[in-house]
Amino acid sequence: MSRLLEKHGIQIGRMEPGATNSITDVDGVMVGQSTIIEGESVRTGVTAIVPHSGNLFHEKVKAAAVTINGFGKAVGLPQINELGTIETPILLTNTLNVGKVSDALIAWVLAHYQLPGCPITSINPVVAECNDSYLNDIQGRHVEKEHVFHALDTASADPVAEGVVGAGTGVSAFEFKSGIGSASRIVTLDDMVYTVGVLSLPNFGCREELLIDGVPVGRELRDYERSEPDSEEGSIVIVIATDLPLSHRQLVRIAKRASFGIARTGGTCHNSSGEFVVAFTTANKVPHDSKRIFLEERRLNDAHSVINAVFQATIEAVEESILSALFSAETMVGIDGHRRGAVPIPEVLSFLKASGHSYS
Amino acid sequence: MSRLLEKHGIQIGRMEPGATNSITDVDGVMVGQSTIIEGESVRTGVTAIVPHSGNLFHEKVKAAAVTINGFGKAVGLPQINELGTIETPILLTNTLNVGKVSDALIAWVLAHYQLPGCPITSINPVVAECNDSYLNDIQGRHVEKEHVFHALDTASADPVAEGVVGAGTGVSAFEFKSGIGSASRIVTLDDMVYTVGVLSLPNFGCREELLIDGVPVGRELRDYERSEPDSEEGSIVIVIATDLPLSHRQLVRIAKRASFGIARTGGTCHNSSGEFVVAFTTANKVPHDSKRIFLEERRLNDAHSVINAVFQATIEAVEESILSALFSAETMVGIDGHRRGAVPIPEVLSFLKASGHSYS
Amino acid sequence: MSRLLEKHGIQIGRMEPGATNSITDVDGVMVGQSTIIEGESVRTGVTAIVPHSGNLFHEKVKAAAVTINGFGKAVGLPQINELGTIETPILLTNTLNVGKVSDALIAWVLAHYQLPGCPITSINPVVAECNDSYLNDIQGRHVEKEHVFHALDTASADPVAEGVVGAGTGVSAFEFKSGIGSASRIVTLDDMVYTVGVLSLPNFGCREELLIDGVPVGRELRDYERSEPDSEEGSIVIVIATDLPLSHRQLVRIAKRASFGIARTGGTCHNSSGEFVVAFTTANKVPHDSKRIFLEERRLNDAHSVINAVFQATIEAVEESILSALFSAETMVGIDGHRRGAVPIPEVLSFLKASGHSYS
Amino acid sequence: MSRLLEKHGIQIGRMEPGATNSITDVDGVMVGQSTIIEGESVRTGVTAIVPHSGNLFHEKVKAAAVTINGFGKAVGLPQINELGTIETPILLTNTLNVGKVSDALIAWVLAHYQLPGCPITSINPVVAECNDSYLNDIQGRHVEKEHVFHALDTASADPVAEGVVGAGTGVSAFEFKSGIGSASRIVTLDDMVYTVGVLSLPNFGCREELLIDGVPVGRELRDYERSEPDSEEGSIVIVIATDLPLSHRQLVRIAKRASFGIARTGGTCHNSSGEFVVAFTTANKVPHDSKRIFLEERRLNDAHSVINAVFQATIEAVEESILSALFSAETMVGIDGHRRGAVPIPEVLSFLKASGHSYS
Repeated sequence: MSRLLEKHGIQIGRMEPGATNSITDVDGVMVGQSTIIEGESVRTGVTAIVPHSGNLFHEKVKAAAVTINGFGKAVGLPQINELGTIETPILLTNTLNVGKVSDALIAWVLAHYQLPGCPITSINPVVAECNDSYLNDIQGRHVEKEHVFHALDTASADPVAEGVVGAGTGVSAFEFKSGIGSASRIVTLDDMVYTVGVLSLPNFGCREELLIDGVPVGRELRDYERSEPDSEEGSIVIVIATDLPLSHRQLVRIAKRASFGIARTGGTCHNSSGEFVVAFTTANKVPHDSKRIFLEERRLNDAHSVINAVFQATIEAVEESILSALFSAETMVGIDGHRRGAVPIPEVLSFLKASGHSYS
Repeated sequence: MSRLLEKHGIQIGRMEPGATNSITDVDGVMVGQSTIIEGESVRTGVTAIVPHSGNLFHEKVKAAAVTINGFGKAVGLPQINELGTIETPILLTNTLNVGKVSDALIAWVLAHYQLPGCPITSINPVVAECNDSYLNDIQGRHVEKEHVFHALDTASADPVAEGVVGAGTGVSAFEFKSGIGSASRIVTLDDMVYTVGVLSLPNFGCREELLIDGVPVGRELRDYERSEPDSEEGSIVIVIATDLPLSHRQLVRIAKRASFGIARTGGTCHNSSGEFVVAFTTANKVPHDSKRIFLEERRLNDAHSVINAVFQATIEAVEESILSALFSAETMVGIDGHRRGAVPIPEVLSFLKASGHSYS
Repeated sequence: MSRLLEKHGIQIGRMEPGATNSITDVDGVMVGQSTIIEGESVRTGVTAIVPHSGNLFHEKVKAAAVTINGFGKAVGLPQINELGTIETPILLTNTLNVGKVSDALIAWVLAHYQLPGCPITSINPVVAECNDSYLNDIQGRHVEKEHVFHALDTASADPVAEGVVGAGTGVSAFEFKSGIGSASRIVTLDDMVYTVGVLSLPNFGCREELLIDGVPVGRELRDYERSEPDSEEGSIVIVIATDLPLSHRQLVRIAKRASFGIARTGGTCHNSSGEFVVAFTTANKVPHDSKRIFLEERRLNDAHSVINAVFQATIEAVEESILSALFSAETMVGIDGHRRGAVPIPEVLSFLKASGHSYS
Repeated sequence: MSRLLEKHGIQIGRMEPGATNSITDVDGVMVGQSTIIEGESVRTGVTAIVPHSGNLFHEKVKAAAVTINGFGKAVGLPQINELGTIETPILLTNTLNVGKVSDALIAWVLAHYQLPGCPITSINPVVAECNDSYLNDIQGRHVEKEHVFHALDTASADPVAEGVVGAGTGVSAFEFKSGIGSASRIVTLDDMVYTVGVLSLPNFGCREELLIDGVPVGRELRDYERSEPDSEEGSIVIVIATDLPLSHRQLVRIAKRASFGIARTGGTCHNSSGEFVVAFTTANKVPHDSKRIFLEERRLNDAHSVINAVFQATIEAVEESILSALFSAETMVGIDGHRRGAVPIPEVLSFLKASGHSYS
């Protein structure tokens, strides 16, 4: 699935993808999803990114959060940047479900990570959202605790299911049907191989803004099966995972490059778009334990040129994950009969070809 | 109630308080609370600050949020700083209830602020929290939708009930029982009178850190009715309201002064303390409406010396609100038989007197 | 000059440029430059952006500064964001000249903006830089006070001289000769016309990263007249001017979009690249005067969709200004015989054509 | 000198000072100063903090910078926070000398840190300032290259000279003569001893704001030898050094506590006050060298309670350094016959005693 662009001969960037071109190429990272499609108006869901299969509360991952445009309702960000860690799985859902999903995540953490004799009284749930109200009855807040638990309990290291699934069920991008997208890139250091993986939930953009590998496909498709304009301008959530040993400051640097990947798809971050980026590394896990005075950590040397490769890997994986979400999504009809069509892949390929896309 | 310190002859700072020395001295601001005390282990609640009595979603207030120490779970902050506005009442509760309270706030906003023909599909709930687990069964998440609605529906412009009430029901500060505190200061410009009001929820600090009007009372009371140490180090939420016309940038400047008020009470912002400040002005309300291209606003001139008076007013009101929470709170016994004693006011007064507190 | 891309049939983006496609299309904005080319090793200069022709210290412009990647030595940024204003012209120069240029700017401000009876004792000079050491004897710090004064004294509202001029004299981008670039876009509101103008100093990027209107020209030119790799990875300074009435918060939002323009040229912000953005508006000038208590200001309504047009205008003007710097620059030989070739325009045009660039 | 408060029986806080109660208690840290007093109107200087005696450019120290109130002209801060390091000594001087001092610092770095075959083409000078225009001919910019070199070349690990010396020559605080102040605190971990040292340059505050160990001495001295009000409201620069192994994120946390120390002296950070904090650790030096891919670092565990002791140590040392600057300074007459009197120590002691200052 994650190799969909590749299958069509579209190669984003210059670096090699990981084995499945998916965030789960980062060793230990797992993804699970609940897709909720009911009747004619419920089109929503939840996507869980689980940084590792152990006790995440007691072995936190180093992390950083960056806000590109803050018109969004993501929760958990201040603590990520104060302590430099994440202690719960990262959940994605829709805008009005954040409260319910946060509460369910707390319940799940208490059920799964609490050790005997060590009651947990403080949890920082990390939940981000996009607005799926064009296709979904958003006011109904249809994500229930069981959906959250299902996504978490079924999380696996398999290649990420993309398109109309999980939190991507009801979203749109560039006025096409969008969904969940994922991609990865390999960074090779001497004889070591590290991976940068991305999962994104793109829900932004006007039709005519869309660029595919630099080609202004959106302009050509300006009038292709237009719906009436969507009043919600959207958002994007981007989760970046890596196994490179990085400090919090360096994870901030990585996360800041996500906007470059968005820009390469034509995105401009509209006024009412909530763009949040969360980046974590599975290296240097941080104990909840307060007994050790010092932690010993290895981290990348900023002065070594490999950090530029990591930036490049991030940008490429973000760009590809967004396009992969579009290519994987199928046309959907939802609330009030609203219809959101999939990207017409044959037409796109023909435009790419006409644009001398032989370089790819 | 808010005049409690004054009643005891303690005068914090040099500026005049407002009529009731409470955040509700700011015209239009309302506060409502739900106190939940059940059996031997439920000691929690919710406090609502409603910036004005109109349709807040459609007439947003200008606002800013500042994080002093981000080990906390407040939600809604990124959007406050991106758009410079708040569109829901501000709710305070305990750490693990944030999800439930956010969801209830969304329900209340939909029920109260939605206009016919104008469906609301995006809401930025603002909820902050302190950890009341020393006295309360925090994992039980005992704040329900009806408690949230009650706090919102009973909000009034009356002087704020302080001490063991609302979100302050289960909190502690300086290892004494704490609760809700409030204070205000008057800033006079020519013949105009403006007000800075503060409501705080102090839940931080070791006993020996406590300063009252600069006197190290905490050191003297080091051994007074000590409980075993509390494993949770606490937090403080500070809400600042004013009717001064200020821009978002200026509200950030005001909010940053809150830490000076905390410092004057002896607080140092421990590692695991979530200190969040939200400041808003009731001047220059911002329409939800997207029809007007331009907004006309009046704002304070930073170069005019009155801004220093506003800083001073903020610092004094924050300091007094924290002390007022302590003085208003009564001893409480809660979960697992944990007991948190009130500040012994006679002893405190005697120390103040011995410290030549005649200057007050 | 600023219409160079257009002359070659390359149209960046979808919006209309201003009359001269230059930052000076913004009414009142002036630019002056000193180009310093001496012997075989001095290749540097200074560029001055003067926000308006009046007494800027006494009539400051509203402004905001954003750091994309902070490996740079720009000065004056903290005060821009604290007070939301700029009180001196903005100067660009090379990395090691910032101190000398700041001092010269102070001298110029004292000489030009000081009013009788009102001694100036505090000045916040705004100076940013790029590293021109590949072609220039940077340690020599060859920019003198007279060069600074000349740039300031000759500033005019004429279309900006681009390419190898001023601070652009010694810089490179994508391993081609770069220089000063400028562009502008028009935003129309009802019957009003506003302008967004950009001046940039691009000095970043590997050859193979270069995109021109989305076409990966850099990959095709990978081996075209390659110099040995440059050890300095570069930087970019971007100055955005507008006459739209915006608040400081809104200017931050605009400035944050500059990175999207960089991304569209293929830039990734390498580790050792200092990317700084300064945005100002000539509307709502702010008096130095401390007598007025309040200022009356008009500002854009974020909720009105025109803000997205302003974002788009900014991104397009940044993208075009970078490309315009490349297209305007001529091959230069400098210190140690280092040679930096200009972009080969005929080859570029031929690649664009082969990429089906008929859409432009 | 640094034990001056102690000599008078004033003990700030609860923690132990280091051997000399000075920033140089941190092993390796050196301070040098140039005091410039000429004729009746030159009262200025420069203070250099040298983090270690080795080649600082090639062995950088980990560092962080925090802006409390950004109405100031400090340079070098963005790069500190992007890379988490400082590569030059930190210089303090007056507001209008920052450019000249930066340039002199570049010259000194080139002369002292440049290795054969490894030309330095990029330097991030760190220079901060206070405004000494009440006593000094600030427009004259009287700090020359030789003063800067003298301060750097004479830097030593001796206890810091305090009061009217270096950058402190012309400054005032609380309308008393101020100057350079320093203090330190010891943090003991198991059998290890770490030090937090502070050097500050306090130049802020109204008379009546002054608190000494919590006692409102300023109110009592409101009318003591008042000069006419000073039009410049001032600033403070705070440099924090430690040998504790901390990450950049943790150094930010430490630096943020400086404002608590200011608050305890009564400071409120007036509108036109530039408060900048730079914190560095001598542990985990960072090579300029780009050959190593990874760095191995030890850092404090945030979860261990010792971090609260570090916060407390920082706050106490900042508070004491400010008071020590006041107590060490002597009355000075400067430009235009302006006179700034020293704090009247006997009167202060008598107020402290009257305030039952027996607790100290």
